[in-house]
Amino acid sequence: MDAPSEHYESNYKHMKRPLVTIDANEAAAYIAHHVNEVIAIYPITPASPMGEWSDAWAMAGKKNIWGTVPEVIELQSEAGAAGTVHGALQSGALSTSFTASQGLLLMMPNLYKIAGELTPTVIHVSARTVAGHALSIFGDHSDVMAMRMTGMAMLCSNSVQEAMDLAMISHAATLESRIPFIHFFDGFRTSHEEQKIEQITLDDMRAMIDDDHVIAHRSRAMTPDNPFIRGTAQNPDVFFQSKEASNEFYNACPGIVQQTMDRFAELTGRAYKLFDYHGPDDAERIVVLMGSGAETVHETVDKLNAAGEKVGLIKVRLYRPFDMKAFMHTIPDSAHSLSVLDRTKEPGSAGEPLYQDILTAFQENRVEGFRKFDAEPRVIAGRYGLSSKEFTPPMVKAILDELKEIKPKNHFTVGINDDVTHTSLVYFDGTRSITNGNEKPAGKVAVSGSDKENPSNLTRNEGVFQGLFYGLGADGTVSANKNSIKIIGENTDFYAQGYFVYDSKKSGSMTTSHLRFGPDQIRSAYLIDEADFIACHQFRFVERMDILRYAREGATFLINAFYGADDLWENLPGKVQKQIIDKKIRLFGIDGYKVAKESGMGNRINTVMQVCFFAISEILPKEKAVEAIKDAIKKTYGQKGEAILKSNFAAVDNAVEHLYEVKVPTEVTSKKAMLNPIIGEAPEFVND
Amino acid sequence: MDAPSEHYESNYKHMKRPLVTIDANEAAAYIAHHVNEVIAIYPITPASPMGEWSDAWAMAGKKNIWGTVPEVIELQSEAGAAGTVHGALQSGALSTSFTASQGLLLMMPNLYKIAGELTPTVIHVSARTVAGHALSIFGDHSDVMAMRMTGMAMLCSNSVQEAMDLAMISHAATLESRIPFIHFFDGFRTSHEEQKIEQITLDDMRAMIDDDHVIAHRSRAMTPDNPFIRGTAQNPDVFFQSKEASNEFYNACPGIVQQTMDRFAELTGRAYKLFDYHGPDDAERIVVLMGSGAETVHETVDKLNAAGEKVGLIKVRLYRPFDMKAFMHTIPDSAHSLSVLDRTKEPGSAGEPLYQDILTAFQENRVEGFRKFDAEPRVIAGRYGLSSKEFTPPMVKAILDELKEIKPKNHFTVGINDDVTHTSLVYFDGTRSITNGNEKPAGKVAVSGSDKENPSNLTRNEGVFQGLFYGLGADGTVSANKNSIKIIGENTDFYAQGYFVYDSKKSGSMTTSHLRFGPDQIRSAYLIDEADFIACHQFRFVERMDILRYAREGATFLINAFYGADDLWENLPGKVQKQIIDKKIRLFGIDGYKVAKESGMGNRINTVMQVCFFAISEILPKEKAVEAIKDAIKKTYGQKGEAILKSNFAAVDNAVEHLYEVKVPTEVTSKKAMLNPIIGEAPEFVND
Repeated sequence: MDAPSEHYESNYKHMKRPLVTIDANEAAAYIAHHVNEVIAIYPITPASPMGEWSDAWAMAGKKNIWGTVPEVIELQSEAGAAGTVHGALQSGALSTSFTASQGLLLMMPNLYKIAGELTPTVIHVSARTVAGHALSIFGDHSDVMAMRMTGMAMLCSNSVQEAMDLAMISHAATLESRIPFIHFFDGFRTSHEEQKIEQITLDDMRAMIDDDHVIAHRSRAMTPDNPFIRGTAQNPDVFFQSKEASNEFYNACPGIVQQTMDRFAELTGRAYKLFDYHGPDDAERIVVLMGSGAETVHETVDKLNAAGEKVGLIKVRLYRPFDMKAFMHTIPDSAHSLSVLDRTKEPGSAGEPLYQDILTAFQENRVEGFRKFDAEPRVIAGRYGLSSKEFTPPMVKAILDELKEIKPKNHFTVGINDDVTHTSLVYFDGTRSITNGNEKPAGKVAVSGSDKENPSNLTRNEGVFQGLFYGLGADGTVSANKNSIKIIGENTDFYAQGYFVYDSKKSGSMTTSHLRFGPDQIRSAYLIDEADFIACHQFRFVERMDILRYAREGATFLINAFYGADDLWENLPGKVQKQIIDKKIRLFGIDGYKVAKESGMGNRINTVMQVCFFAISEILPKEKAVEAIKDAIKKTYGQKGEAILKSNFAAVDNAVEHLYEVKVPTEVTSKKAMLNPIIGEAPEFVND
Repeated sequence: MDAPSEHYESNYKHMKRPLVTIDANEAAAYIAHHVNEVIAIYPITPASPMGEWSDAWAMAGKKNIWGTVPEVIELQSEAGAAGTVHGALQSGALSTSFTASQGLLLMMPNLYKIAGELTPTVIHVSARTVAGHALSIFGDHSDVMAMRMTGMAMLCSNSVQEAMDLAMISHAATLESRIPFIHFFDGFRTSHEEQKIEQITLDDMRAMIDDDHVIAHRSRAMTPDNPFIRGTAQNPDVFFQSKEASNEFYNACPGIVQQTMDRFAELTGRAYKLFDYHGPDDAERIVVLMGSGAETVHETVDKLNAAGEKVGLIKVRLYRPFDMKAFMHTIPDSAHSLSVLDRTKEPGSAGEPLYQDILTAFQENRVEGFRKFDAEPRVIAGRYGLSSKEFTPPMVKAILDELKEIKPKNHFTVGINDDVTHTSLVYFDGTRSITNGNEKPAGKVAVSGSDKENPSNLTRNEGVFQGLFYGLGADGTVSANKNSIKIIGENTDFYAQGYFVYDSKKSGSMTTSHLRFGPDQIRSAYLIDEADFIACHQFRFVERMDILRYAREGATFLINAFYGADDLWENLPGKVQKQIIDKKIRLFGIDGYKVAKESGMGNRINTVMQVCFFAISEILPKEKAVEAIKDAIKKTYGQKGEAILKSNFAAVDNAVEHLYEVKVPTEVTSKKAMLNPIIGEAPEFVND
């Protein structure tokens, strides 16, 4: 590991506020809880934690910035939650809710009403796939896009830090503009990604929320003391003109959001625009998108530009009201082509929504002349990342390469292999050797455009520690890793990222933790495919699955085995031995179950394996790590009595003692073959 | 009245089928009932009658084309109805439902599922405003447009005949394409408009519905005999590619719909296209829209072209899947500008949905070259008719005139006066003297473009009888008029149209019946503003409201008065006397309440007034009319006993006897002033 860089240190210089390692659900809920009075909740994956946080905080007496504890109410469904918000707002209270997917659909009738009545609120959404041919709990923009006609403003956060920042900005802007907001971020990829971020303080919130607007909201409350007609039934004589009467509010909204962003930038140093361009002034090819994918594109264009390309991206932040003029001014003069990416698919449409909005902006620019181009850029559309489908730097490169084509593919997909209607772009994933969804020999794939750089380098981030941890569902691996991120986040100057894949479809219900640490902001919104460290918390995984597939050369491998230093090697399958030798992997072992049992921990190996990780990786000095783990144990189990604390402390000490390194032989000796991961008979499709 | 024209007779020559006078709800329900097995209903205005018809028909044992009576089930909400349809479809049954507005929103989660699983069904929608700043029971496309991302196909009917025809086509096309359909028509304006139409026969239905597709649907049923996995939960590994796997079905759908339309045309002679162009080959200015407004535009461009203009319209029928290529080929070569009209408003959007789709089609045409233009037409957008706001020929003319401007107004509104954000087009409504929503002196208004024709002529249809009937809510006026349309429809060769305005916002709860009869198809999807005949069924209306405002010169006025031939004139307000003299109106009176009472009808005046209408208008020979009314009475009251029949028959005969004409004096003599229609004190806004 490199030491923290100069650049990194300067990054943190202005940060006077607490640094916390949390996910986007907690970040958004943190703001929402502090600037509301009535919080109506109903659980739905992946938004449930926002409601759970608020509920827990309210129970603990956590007050909002005005000194009252928000009332948190769980309703019978999201329809009831939205109705409660609507009612609370009409009574002059500040109110919010959290939801996703079908939950958001159930809120829709109320959202039309809340927006129609120009009532300030923010609904925070962990954007999730709407169930169609299949249900999916994972993330894309199909739910929020289905709300784009309700009159709600829509503001998108691309990362955990942004989820806190733009939650703040949306709550401030809704009060000033009277347009209610949907503030959203990608389900799981952002909602459940742990990042070390700077926390907005209560004083910041007080600086951002203008009490005059709160008082104005209260003064619009329906009360017998201030009688007013609202929510009537209207006939053809007046409905249309009444509806048009809201135009001025929508026209003013983007300006208010930008001003709010500017005030926020003064306060925190983090500057946002309605549309944020990132890239050089002379970029020719531009990607336009919103959500976590924008972070991956950001990272990728930086690398491609460093390698001599001229590429950029536009991050769409305020999607509704859509400010065509602001968008047009965001495009650099040098742009000759744009690829607009939608993380949703609307079957039968002329095009996905963001694409159509941007075409409209170009069309109206031709007439209105918001800005001039020497030659108007071409615009093509693509779909990516449906239901949390991976979206990686090689895919970004494929998109940017496609823009070099004389006639680029329009309405492409990327990340899958559509071998029926042939919409997919070919992409080159060096490590995984996957192209266009099919396995092919690495390096033998025709990639359109220039290919001087080895595309596999795109997923390497110098100076970033990348660790993969394979555990069994409920064996404590994920909790231990979340804990490890917090320890690293709080005890070092590193940026930290943790993402946890709960894979319910393979044998053994495996969980995979993806941990990154490094000196610079981590924008890799995709799974790790080149790991510095791999931990396998269950020996049987190594017998059935290709655990070392993503190990980089010289990586470290830690395995929980029923063996000692002398017999571990022999008990590894031959294929694994070969990988260890070929990739020059350092091999560490521990009999985690034995250590746990002997420490009085039963079969709970999580603390043991966590200690081993810190002992090997040396991200922290060993003593500091041990101390930090013990502190964490005190926090977690302190109330459960001395005996439990004692066992955990013993496990920590015993783990350090029993961890061993195996001197790796130079030849494969094992006769053990890999076992079939599928138990029983299964069709070919399943076996593959 | 002119006699039926040659043209008219030729229109009917090929019509071998029964002619029925019904509204679009009945027309759509008639098809739906005959080609389904499970009909799940929940009432919502203006779609409720569809469910009521099916329920009544099922109770009466009316069978579908396969000889079984559909099971009609009323659920607890539209969410339950959609769930029932979804479940029935999965069991292999043919299933349908009817809804509108918030009801459709509640169906949304199931629509995503039904479409995602490629399950054939049709949801018939009487399109209605979604409640926002206010609730409205009236019509626009905000509800169906909110479904455009669900994957449902969307087919729009513009008239009652089309509601029957396209209901048929959608049921046939869904079975072949496996894409479920939303078949919609304008709430109230079409759903509740009575028209004389040709009825599809059961043999037609059998010819249109291919049993092979029904069998294929049944074979996809979920049953233990044929186990199959569907409706699973999918993870990021496979969801995206599975979703793209439906592309071929969506790509094929427009072709299937067109073929289905072609088969329908062979059968019935009524030909439809995905996009129907109407106008001359050399039209320069084109309106694009869907729904009842297209009928008004159709009528208006015919008149404008007859007066030397070069204008046309494109009727959008299949809105989803949106066939860009088919649309581009529909535009005449001569077109230099298009105005795309949306009957919805999506606040904060870059543009309304149809507009954005058409911009997308133009953009992709530039790249794909579906077709070439010497000069690509300009495209502007407008909103009209929200919540059943009137959309009239003068507004159509204003839109077409705007297209002559060097820089036409984009995102305009028409039909209101937006004096805040100034989006409205100025239009000239000669009769009403209303421009841009404000009262102004007729003829003194600057109308853009050529103005040689008196625009007031646009709402005149030569040879068409236009009658206005003012009644009191529940006094039987509307029922009598619906009955009159049926009598005229069934006893003459006239086309007939009836539209009924239930005005709940003015004193006395007035109902206004708008009846048109004539030799040609009636496309006037707007209220009558030049009446040949006006009936006032309540004397107090004439004292309070400007009942004769819409009387044309030489019109006939029938009033139910407590006066006789000698004292009626004196009891009319001076203003009304002046109108009668100035407009050369023939004046008829009857003491309807007296005649009704003496005939044993209590205070039910509907039969009396209906007889007077037939006696004066002579649409039918008086004897034939009397006979038809008596037949209708037998049908309606036959089961209620001899006494009721006798009273009604007496009322018919007495009405003819007591009807009198007043010889209109040449001078105003009455001192009576108009009374204030507002009872009690009210603000200026209400009084106006």
